[in-house]
Amino acid sequence: MTMKLYCFGESGNAYKAALQLHLSGLDWEPVWVDFFGGASRSPEYREMNVMGEAPVLVDGDLTLTQSGVIQMYITEKTGKFGGNTPEEAREVMRWMFWDNHKMSSQAGMTRFLTNFLPEKHRNADVNAFNQGRLKAALQTLNTALEGRDWLVGDGPTNADFSCCGYLFYPEPYGFDRAEWANIDRWLGNISALPGWKPPYDLMPGSPADRA
Amino acid sequence: MTMKLYCFGESGNAYKAALQLHLSGLDWEPVWVDFFGGASRSPEYREMNVMGEAPVLVDGDLTLTQSGVIQMYITEKTGKFGGNTPEEAREVMRWMFWDNHKMSSQAGMTRFLTNFLPEKHRNADVNAFNQGRLKAALQTLNTALEGRDWLVGDGPTNADFSCCGYLFYPEPYGFDRAEWANIDRWLGNISALPGWKPPYDLMPGSPADRA
Repeated sequence: MTMKLYCFGESGNAYKAALQLHLSGLDWEPVWVDFFGGASRSPEYREMNVMGEAPVLVDGDLTLTQSGVIQMYITEKTGKFGGNTPEEAREVMRWMFWDNHKMSSQAGMTRFLTNFLPEKHRNADVNAFNQGRLKAALQTLNTALEGRDWLVGDGPTNADFSCCGYLFYPEPYGFDRAEWANIDRWLGNISALPGWKPPYDLMPGSPADRA
Repeated sequence: MTMKLYCFGESGNAYKAALQLHLSGLDWEPVWVDFFGGASRSPEYREMNVMGEAPVLVDGDLTLTQSGVIQMYITEKTGKFGGNTPEEAREVMRWMFWDNHKMSSQAGMTRFLTNFLPEKHRNADVNAFNQGRLKAALQTLNTALEGRDWLVGDGPTNADFSCCGYLFYPEPYGFDRAEWANIDRWLGNISALPGWKPPYDLMPGSPADRA
């Protein structure tokens, strides 16, 4: 049965799952969530996911939420991208937790605040605060990638797919690849993977649709 | 061999691991990290953890960071608190990821901004922004606990230990148990567990030491 990923193009958290599903060669299809129209705040959606977030993966009778859990589940099905040893598996989880706590959380926030939040609600002090936190996360990631092609082991894992969630988007939000040499090189490794696609090519919905 | 948990009393992320180690009856000891003195920013500490964070667990030759990974590892050793079925295990992970992304991240931030950040660096707009995000996370948690004693299944799991990380601290930071009936009841269930201790009783270091 075709798996369904509830998602929207602008969601880097959904992109993590979409990219892994795609690169794993699994049978899946995206189902567009009208996030900016408030769909994820509806009672029906909250019934499916009390957290009110995307992505949600439906595989037959199983409904999973949180990109990290969906990533672990896809790896269970395929044996791919979870690390080759118990040590690597822990290291993959380590970067996934860090990403959720510090990297994608902050990149998603700054991108929302500087691109999608209506102008009248934007605040210079709040932006400066969040830009500072984004820079700190990028610094940690850039340092970790010194001399490495991938975050864990010798090939791509969920650690990479998680941490890159918001880093391929074209909208400016405070992340400029040219300023972060190791991150830039590593993103090049990811986008060179056979079949790789950027977020708006894997999931329906983009700012262009709302222009 | 006695496990060492690098931690400091003010860290709710470290408390998650300390509480689980303690309730699991394992042989461990805390090692104080002088976080407010800048210890986690030192080259030596960054060598141990590029993320510059606490907690860090050292078990013989194994060094683990990220509270979520440490929680999973303790569960591997003991078989406790990870959920009783594959479905429960995924649900536990789901709350751990959500907590890292939305709950403890935000509670830790607001607590830092309103208690530990020097007055001259505080900003009313930034505080209001973060208080709004804290409230949204508390709302999700309170809703999920409606009619439930524990987040997953019929007993305490890492989901509970993760989400409660910052919720037992005495310093005011925008969380008042009296405003959140389900969270208040659930925290009561956790603190009624045999042997339970609050953060400053499990880990060295507290604001009192720096007063």
